Amino acid sequence: MATIDLNADLGEGFGPWTMGDDAAMFALVTSANVACGGHASDPETMFRTLSLARENGVSVGAHPSYPDLAGFGRRRMPATTTEVERFVAAQTGALLAIAALADHPVRYVKPHGALANVAAAEPDVAAAIARAVRAIDRDLAVLAISGTCLQQAADDAGLRVFSEIYADRGYTPAGQLAPRGTPGAVIHDADAAAERLITFFDSGLMPTIDGGAIRLAVDSICVHGDNPAAVAMAQRVRSALEARGLTIAPFIAPA
Amino acid sequence: MATIDLNADLGEGFGPWTMGDDAAMFALVTSANVACGGHASDPETMFRTLSLARENGVSVGAHPSYPDLAGFGRRRMPATTTEVERFVAAQTGALLAIAALADHPVRYVKPHGALANVAAAEPDVAAAIARAVRAIDRDLAVLAISGTCLQQAADDAGLRVFSEIYADRGYTPAGQLAPRGTPGAVIHDADAAAERLITFFDSGLMPTIDGGAIRLAVDSICVHGDNPAAVAMAQRVRSALEARGLTIAPFIAPA
Amino acid sequence: MATIDLNADLGEGFGPWTMGDDAAMFALVTSANVACGGHASDPETMFRTLSLARENGVSVGAHPSYPDLAGFGRRRMPATTTEVERFVAAQTGALLAIAALADHPVRYVKPHGALANVAAAEPDVAAAIARAVRAIDRDLAVLAISGTCLQQAADDAGLRVFSEIYADRGYTPAGQLAPRGTPGAVIHDADAAAERLITFFDSGLMPTIDGGAIRLAVDSICVHGDNPAAVAMAQRVRSALEARGLTIAPFIAPA
Amino acid sequence: MATIDLNADLGEGFGPWTMGDDAAMFALVTSANVACGGHASDPETMFRTLSLARENGVSVGAHPSYPDLAGFGRRRMPATTTEVERFVAAQTGALLAIAALADHPVRYVKPHGALANVAAAEPDVAAAIARAVRAIDRDLAVLAISGTCLQQAADDAGLRVFSEIYADRGYTPAGQLAPRGTPGAVIHDADAAAERLITFFDSGLMPTIDGGAIRLAVDSICVHGDNPAAVAMAQRVRSALEARGLTIAPFIAPA
Repeated sequence: MATIDLNADLGEGFGPWTMGDDAAMFALVTSANVACGGHASDPETMFRTLSLARENGVSVGAHPSYPDLAGFGRRRMPATTTEVERFVAAQTGALLAIAALADHPVRYVKPHGALANVAAAEPDVAAAIARAVRAIDRDLAVLAISGTCLQQAADDAGLRVFSEIYADRGYTPAGQLAPRGTPGAVIHDADAAAERLITFFDSGLMPTIDGGAIRLAVDSICVHGDNPAAVAMAQRVRSALEARGLTIAPFIAPA
Repeated sequence: MATIDLNADLGEGFGPWTMGDDAAMFALVTSANVACGGHASDPETMFRTLSLARENGVSVGAHPSYPDLAGFGRRRMPATTTEVERFVAAQTGALLAIAALADHPVRYVKPHGALANVAAAEPDVAAAIARAVRAIDRDLAVLAISGTCLQQAADDAGLRVFSEIYADRGYTPAGQLAPRGTPGAVIHDADAAAERLITFFDSGLMPTIDGGAIRLAVDSICVHGDNPAAVAMAQRVRSALEARGLTIAPFIAPA
Repeated sequence: MATIDLNADLGEGFGPWTMGDDAAMFALVTSANVACGGHASDPETMFRTLSLARENGVSVGAHPSYPDLAGFGRRRMPATTTEVERFVAAQTGALLAIAALADHPVRYVKPHGALANVAAAEPDVAAAIARAVRAIDRDLAVLAISGTCLQQAADDAGLRVFSEIYADRGYTPAGQLAPRGTPGAVIHDADAAAERLITFFDSGLMPTIDGGAIRLAVDSICVHGDNPAAVAMAQRVRSALEARGLTIAPFIAPA
Repeated sequence: MATIDLNADLGEGFGPWTMGDDAAMFALVTSANVACGGHASDPETMFRTLSLARENGVSVGAHPSYPDLAGFGRRRMPATTTEVERFVAAQTGALLAIAALADHPVRYVKPHGALANVAAAEPDVAAAIARAVRAIDRDLAVLAISGTCLQQAADDAGLRVFSEIYADRGYTPAGQLAPRGTPGAVIHDADAAAERLITFFDSGLMPTIDGGAIRLAVDSICVHGDNPAAVAMAQRVRSALEARGLTIAPFIAPA
């Protein structure tokens, strides 16, 4: 494997407020999951973010969420599957239209926060998201964790699916994200995170929190973008990958 | 002229609230200007409205507005022209995506309320709306009052433009809507409104509030949809037009 | 028992939207649970509603809710108990301030919808509401269903508590509201509802859905205000109570 | 004059977003103008902010605004004077209730941003704000720029009024804030700002942008709290005032 993508959640401001250092992150990642009004953002913030993505040659994905600005999309909100289908469509459609204005198209969809967790585990919610994406544009890809319900639902809908791993999250022997709170669930040290990724690319096997290792599909590595330590972590990971000879490039071309 | 369209602003509920009698209106009009989250509506309401439109064979236009739920889009909100461009795009994009889910495409755009008034009179705001529409899809038409800045801007952008008149609004000798408050600005009586329209179709000349008459282009007649008297007015107008031998049909096919 | 209160949820519009026929309902009830921005309302709607209450001599209660306009407060939203405490305080405080402007004070608090259901069953949520009410003003009363956690929590907080029954809801032998969907849970016929209330006032025993009867404390009867049939039901209930010789009066004076 | 107050706009986050470094600012100021949901904040943010104020012994004022999260209250929104009266009341009332929960009372009101500018210049808007404050609690003070319509309206309403000057804003010979964009309207250098204030306290005369000087009433000095340079400016100003022998203390006791 000579090429790998780095993705991060960006454009997560709202009105006068910002979240993280988007300017720095856009120079480091090759794909950006762009908030579209569910957990963050508004038309002005979307436009600014898409313009930054275009200037940096970064591929863009829509990043729909439960409608929950106050909770930043981290809480599971009450919603039927048809409600999920419709708010995912409305948020994604808003971003697509702003992307048309910014002359930088949306290439994929990746659900955010609590919606991503639910879509990973529940087939009906995953299918609702896949239906929304497919209805809008069959050429939109889906970015998902390998082995989740979302990956399956996108596959079943005939959509292209790309697989991601998290730079700073530990995996269970079953290949799932270890729940926060579990020892090893979150890797805070940038060097340790980089080293683990190099081990993975050298061996094809991802270390698990029980000391074992598993095979994982990977088109992209997700790094955080919403806190002060995020830039340092992303820089460290990117440097380590480049030092090992990997080319950092988007899994799907930006335009 | 053997064919005429009837359009109304529909889908103007929000969450648990409704506005007017959409079920009755969808049986009477041939085009529906559908709220898309600016002055009214949400993803569920959009979906329900688009489904009603599909079931009734009614053509759909996006009905973007200043973001102002509390004021129902009737107030001019502070916004730069680029802000207008972006919120019009975001609202229209949301509706397009829901329309894809509902399998009933959006065919045109008509601005709502205060935004429509400003776009009629100010070239830069009109141009911002035309840019947003054109960026999203060059096949989207614009529904505008003949002679307004919006008609001109849409023309200049290479978009198809259709012309509307208002069933219940008086016109000045210059062909503009007489400002509310002016004698003759609003026609409350359904019979008087119907009669004036018949006069217009018979003569090709629209009576003006000063007792004269002017030539007006017309592809569609706008009737209200948001108050209890609206259904009766729409029925009366439709009956009168049909009785005179006009075919009521959309100015642009629904799908 | 010579006196009874009739209460209804009123002021449940938002911006340009209305819910039910408040003008008619204010002439029929003696206490109004007034929405305060959680599931409905805004400063203008609150002011209009409080002015109607003052003109009709109707006592006012704050009607706080999960913050959920789209769901009208009918869904349980994710919220910790401290979050409940704070949004109940903020909503109630907003209404109190508008009430000061309208010169018609708020006398009690009654939670709305899903929040009321949760507060009836869960001691920690009930206690959070009682803490918010007590912190704002110890003279505010609480209107609750007898035997619920909310009644207990308000009692424990040293607040005055008044008891209500529902005109159109069936009761279990344990004195709780029969869950919607259970046979007898909702009484749709106004005559049947009125008759049951008369039976209750004659005997002191409330018929239960299993054919038995129980003793229930009652300071107020809750009638619906948010649908077209509501006015007819409220009129029928009020007439029946007056015909039996009961005086319809607020459980706590309006000012 | 041996005592002076320092005030800043604090608690201007929203949901997951923060604005400025409140922890640092609360250690420097003696009065905090706390956002109450108009341009920023929500019940959780209000509670956190009021708790910080209590812990730091800082007096609290409500900081109502045009309802405009997206524009941070910096834009004049369309609103009648009665609408102003009601949204100021609702916002202030929400903060008062949260303050009761946080056991740290609100002592005064200072309008924010565009609302402050309008209230300074237009008697009817100033009077609307004064009516709202007086209706809620006659013991609430008003913090205003000396000579503005707001000061006059608060006086006329029988409210206590305190006068503020801005640490970093230049004054016209008429004693008004020089409009942004005018040379000397904004003082960016902390040392220059501190020096000017010392000159003022030494002489009782405030230098004006034309090189003259005027007499200004002053109970409090407003420093910014919403940007990275704010903390340094506030520290510099506070140090200079203390070095000259002034005691930094609130103009109205915190509790």
